[in-house]
Amino acid sequence: MTTIEFWYEFASTYSYPAAMRIEEIAAKNGLKVQWCPFLLGPVFKAQGWADSPFNIYPAKGAYMWRDMERICQQQDLPFIRPNKFPQNGLTAARLALCPLVSDQRAQFSKQVYQAAFAHQQDISSAQVLTTILKSLAIDGQKAFAQAASPEIKQTLRTNTETAIKKQIFGAPTFVTADGELFWGNDRLEQAVAWQPG
Amino acid sequence: MTTIEFWYEFASTYSYPAAMRIEEIAAKNGLKVQWCPFLLGPVFKAQGWADSPFNIYPAKGAYMWRDMERICQQQDLPFIRPNKFPQNGLTAARLALCPLVSDQRAQFSKQVYQAAFAHQQDISSAQVLTTILKSLAIDGQKAFAQAASPEIKQTLRTNTETAIKKQIFGAPTFVTADGELFWGNDRLEQAVAWQPG
Repeated sequence: MTTIEFWYEFASTYSYPAAMRIEEIAAKNGLKVQWCPFLLGPVFKAQGWADSPFNIYPAKGAYMWRDMERICQQQDLPFIRPNKFPQNGLTAARLALCPLVSDQRAQFSKQVYQAAFAHQQDISSAQVLTTILKSLAIDGQKAFAQAASPEIKQTLRTNTETAIKKQIFGAPTFVTADGELFWGNDRLEQAVAWQPG
Repeated sequence: MTTIEFWYEFASTYSYPAAMRIEEIAAKNGLKVQWCPFLLGPVFKAQGWADSPFNIYPAKGAYMWRDMERICQQQDLPFIRPNKFPQNGLTAARLALCPLVSDQRAQFSKQVYQAAFAHQQDISSAQVLTTILKSLAIDGQKAFAQAASPEIKQTLRTNTETAIKKQIFGAPTFVTADGELFWGNDRLEQAVAWQPG
């Protein structure tokens, strides 16, 4: 089955509506989704930004929050602006990559996005993440231990380096089997429909 | 007839596919297009950029050029990457605002975009702009004289200030009659379909 890569960061607002519908849209197009969590922090740092561009550029930020409201309304997704932005998605990203979580990475990731953008929860909180793991019948203690291991830390670093090598500069980004890159939630439909030329 | 504002800058790549189809799409939705040329330079300067973000951030730039190829192919628009980017659209923008050109601003603007992105022409060249004016049966000498007048220079400055006041941070941007802002060529369809909530 052909795969589409979904590159996402838990702090990324636009990754939320993409995460919530990608499985269904990909399946309709006969594609399997490869969930690729990475960190935008190092990507932004490489571009000279110490913060989210939505914070650095206020007009861009104001637009994004309004746009998120419209998009979520259209997708029938609950949306509450988080108290803090961007959130720290480091632990969540490491957990998503753990062997214990990998089989349910899509479900886990969607729940983290819901915690962040529907329930105004702190996704760096061990309690919030443990509740999500529990709902998926995953042993929280064991998963956290795996997430803190050097192997998983390295896996996330490698993911981020791979994203940069692929010239990914934001999230969400979709990469087709033949290497076409589509950036932005609003490009998901185009990405899954992409036919190599 | 309800109006939709189309804020565009002649150097802006993504404004080209938007300019080429906005009249038809707006008409289908019972909207009249108000063509609002402005300059991105001062907007970008206010954000701390001395150049196009597509030049400042190479990964973003590489993506944009590939994306433009795909979009133009999909829209059946010829596209040749300009030798110089961004081009200087100052004179073209002033001309677009002249009394002599105003009635044909849409046609004039589309031809400038075609010169820039389909014919690899220099849109700061008086010869290129004169040829476009001539094809619209506009007296080039008179139009250039109007474009160089203090009134038209001020009109363009005011347009750019208005754009900044509207929190416009890029082009193309569409603004609905009730003040909703949609940024990007890929949001044109949404913008014209917008129903006040």
